[in-house]
Amino acid sequence: MGSAKVHREIHTPEGHRLRVPARRVALDDGSHFDLYDTSGPYTDERADIDVHQGLPATRRDWALPPAGGAHTQLAHARAGTVTPEMRFVAEREGLEPEFVREEVALGRAVIPVNRNHPESEPTAIGKNFLVKVNANIGNSAVTSSVPEEVEKMVWATRWGADTVMDLSTGKRIHETRERILRNSPVPIGTVPIYQALEKVDGDPTRLTWELYRETVIEQAEQGVDYMTVHAGVLLRYVPLTARRVTGIVSRGGSIMAAWCLAHHRESFLYTRFEELCEIFREYDITFSLGDGLRPGSIADANDEAQFAELRTLGELTHVARSHDVQVMVEGPGHVPMDKIPENVRLEEELCGEAPFYTLGPLTTDVAPGYDHITSAIGAAQIGWHGTAMLCYVTPKEHLGLPDRDDVKTGVITYKLAAHAADVAKGHPRAQAWDDELSRARFEFRWRDQFHLSLDPETAQAYHDQTLPAEPAKTAHFCSMCGPKFCSMRISHDVRRYAEENGLETAEAIEHGMAAKSAEFADGGNRVHLPLAD
Amino acid sequence: MGSAKVHREIHTPEGHRLRVPARRVALDDGSHFDLYDTSGPYTDERADIDVHQGLPATRRDWALPPAGGAHTQLAHARAGTVTPEMRFVAEREGLEPEFVREEVALGRAVIPVNRNHPESEPTAIGKNFLVKVNANIGNSAVTSSVPEEVEKMVWATRWGADTVMDLSTGKRIHETRERILRNSPVPIGTVPIYQALEKVDGDPTRLTWELYRETVIEQAEQGVDYMTVHAGVLLRYVPLTARRVTGIVSRGGSIMAAWCLAHHRESFLYTRFEELCEIFREYDITFSLGDGLRPGSIADANDEAQFAELRTLGELTHVARSHDVQVMVEGPGHVPMDKIPENVRLEEELCGEAPFYTLGPLTTDVAPGYDHITSAIGAAQIGWHGTAMLCYVTPKEHLGLPDRDDVKTGVITYKLAAHAADVAKGHPRAQAWDDELSRARFEFRWRDQFHLSLDPETAQAYHDQTLPAEPAKTAHFCSMCGPKFCSMRISHDVRRYAEENGLETAEAIEHGMAAKSAEFADGGNRVHLPLAD
Repeated sequence: MGSAKVHREIHTPEGHRLRVPARRVALDDGSHFDLYDTSGPYTDERADIDVHQGLPATRRDWALPPAGGAHTQLAHARAGTVTPEMRFVAEREGLEPEFVREEVALGRAVIPVNRNHPESEPTAIGKNFLVKVNANIGNSAVTSSVPEEVEKMVWATRWGADTVMDLSTGKRIHETRERILRNSPVPIGTVPIYQALEKVDGDPTRLTWELYRETVIEQAEQGVDYMTVHAGVLLRYVPLTARRVTGIVSRGGSIMAAWCLAHHRESFLYTRFEELCEIFREYDITFSLGDGLRPGSIADANDEAQFAELRTLGELTHVARSHDVQVMVEGPGHVPMDKIPENVRLEEELCGEAPFYTLGPLTTDVAPGYDHITSAIGAAQIGWHGTAMLCYVTPKEHLGLPDRDDVKTGVITYKLAAHAADVAKGHPRAQAWDDELSRARFEFRWRDQFHLSLDPETAQAYHDQTLPAEPAKTAHFCSMCGPKFCSMRISHDVRRYAEENGLETAEAIEHGMAAKSAEFADGGNRVHLPLAD
Repeated sequence: MGSAKVHREIHTPEGHRLRVPARRVALDDGSHFDLYDTSGPYTDERADIDVHQGLPATRRDWALPPAGGAHTQLAHARAGTVTPEMRFVAEREGLEPEFVREEVALGRAVIPVNRNHPESEPTAIGKNFLVKVNANIGNSAVTSSVPEEVEKMVWATRWGADTVMDLSTGKRIHETRERILRNSPVPIGTVPIYQALEKVDGDPTRLTWELYRETVIEQAEQGVDYMTVHAGVLLRYVPLTARRVTGIVSRGGSIMAAWCLAHHRESFLYTRFEELCEIFREYDITFSLGDGLRPGSIADANDEAQFAELRTLGELTHVARSHDVQVMVEGPGHVPMDKIPENVRLEEELCGEAPFYTLGPLTTDVAPGYDHITSAIGAAQIGWHGTAMLCYVTPKEHLGLPDRDDVKTGVITYKLAAHAADVAKGHPRAQAWDDELSRARFEFRWRDQFHLSLDPETAQAYHDQTLPAEPAKTAHFCSMCGPKFCSMRISHDVRRYAEENGLETAEAIEHGMAAKSAEFADGGNRVHLPLAD
């Protein structure tokens, strides 16, 4: 609403033409303001979309010759090569391409781009970039269909989801994922153990490395950009969860714990981790090392089980990097505010600053139905402290499966939390957006205010509930004070007064106030007041 | 839903019988859990309520002989007297009465109780108490009626509002306030300058001390418990707002700024402050020193204008206390996360730890329609850092007037933020609630989980949208994983496994794991797995 898709073109030394998207908001005075845009061709009115054919495979011909035998972004970055993907994200975030390369080379940022998902627009995930938001979708044994899930993916990216995880566990998992990948402008993540479990009829004890490997390759071939792997659930950590208030709440974590206990062996995810790295390297799939022992209640936050697993994830991060494979590390869960900073500090220390990808965290357990908010409170803070990507939580968390409205509410809630984090951590471009909107608010440019909003439709709808008429969109007052008195109007008069009298800084006031006072006493009240009109 | 009003009786040395309310949640196993309750007789099924007659004047006969000529809670506390009100709040929060007296004597807590509002149940506001939440109601020039506003007050307290401010500016202000006060179980606050402005047809330049004084006494006689007074808006601070992105956004602040500029004098709120203290002392009205120059955008946070006013509020705090009058200090507004701690630090330093009463703060400006969330993010943090009371923000903030649903959403959002703050700051009783609910969740006691929720009706409704049938309320699975596989069930098996094998601590695991390993290798897989049933 009130905006249009634009592309900024850049040319690479290799001769590629990259079209970097943005959402351009047209303002009343003829100027415009560009916003980061994740929605792909779906919001481009010139685009011709056929869901059965999929999006154009734009990135198909961007591939560079391998660096040290590997095609991964990490291998290229380490070899000193700035890839087209790095240029793309640099332009997208207003950064230098060389800075992007350095962050990727250090492992402090990842750009998840499976070579078999050429439809996606590259996205950087790292603490020195804008905080990203992931939306989970996926059918389950009890509900939903393939077109519904594709529709949810498009819907989530429309509202700003930077990546989408397909967590399907029901029927037609392969087909659902295929349709999502071919139509997704954002990186897609999965948890391969979920599909593997379906293949053994839900009995975790029957899982094997061979079956898991086959599933990973199946998904890799389809183009999954990052995969959650719960390789840090070691046998000896499992009993550490026994006295917890809520035990093991991660689905992947409990599957692997069940396997470890049943076989009384370390899981194949851990013992075969280097073989997995070889597969990931082949496609440039990014690891998302899963926190299978994350706390499921604030009582269990920062406990022995959680941090023992985190240490193992740290070891595995270094193993993956030695194979030139990109790595993110997943984080909790349920954590009260006072225990949040410790999580970031430890993750950075143990995992070599690998991008931290956190679920929430939820800062209290008492508000089911509002856990998008209990978790946005934690998400904003952990994002400020250094988390690179936030996994959204919807109002249905703990209660049911999110519908279309829940997906939107979850994404918008997390986008505002991510933006609050960007502002707090001082991302160079973040606050300009707030200031642009606040100026529109102060100047009663209602339409500009709506169009600059994270959710223009809701902003306008709420306004119209109290003052529906079209003239109210240009009125120099609002429904809070009504037309008779308006604090904003008085502020405009203060500004004029100060300008006319040269009283705009503390120093000028010190010097000027006494003089003005005498003048006023002489000349009477000459301040222009709106209500004296 | 699933709970009932109970009262714990205590007896004072003066012979009063105090009935302290709680909401008792009955659990499936026959035990119960008591929650703090603000809803008054309205949720007591034995109560007989007549809105025209008002609530019983329970506190009418609690008055003690004056201490040093004053009847205020502060005067009594300083004289070493534990008032019935202090005993009431001590019992309500699980604290020692003497501790409450000390906090009030230091000015670190207030108990707003106008002697003409004997219908209210005493509430303590201070950093060492549970974080409180205020809900604003009130009609405006463009909308709503007396019964609607009374209904909103009852509705807000039902969901947990600890105090309510009546900000009416339209017709029938006196009558609206009278009906609210006579029926309110919580302290009521106002901003008297709003009504004074109505008396001069909305022209701030025509305001006078005499008119204001008359308005304050009118409201004091009715029983208003605390009043916002924007006495810190000094003439020389006004031009400091001229270069702001959003100028002066406080209604009271802009009224006084307009007055100061028009008359080129300090406002009567400042020059007559001691006379005001005398009136407040007479009724034991609590000052809420208004932040008329609070930032209205994150660009303006923590600026010269804001902190200059805060220094003046600090001076006035000490003046009020010298008259034995209780004081709170109001805070911003719009503040990005990284600038929140400074606000609390300065307020405590400058205002002698007077209870800080903050609006939000909103941590970003880009999400109109979701400002209950942008502000809950700030509110939880500032509450953790020491804010005593949070003024709620509804989804309609900046856009329109809140309706019934918005009031509920605003209150619930702020209750969860306040509770997250209570947990983070380690209030001795706070986390027990989270743990009780989490245990219910882990044990699949769905009904207990709903009943313990901040909003039981929404929690159950969301659950029922996916799995509506009654058996699902007792099912040992939920809609997220479905019946075939459930991570919670596996956790129960882990617990049993650890108990049976004596593996419940890190040390036991170190010692026991090797032995167990051998045993397992001999005997094969004997772990009970739910899916192998």
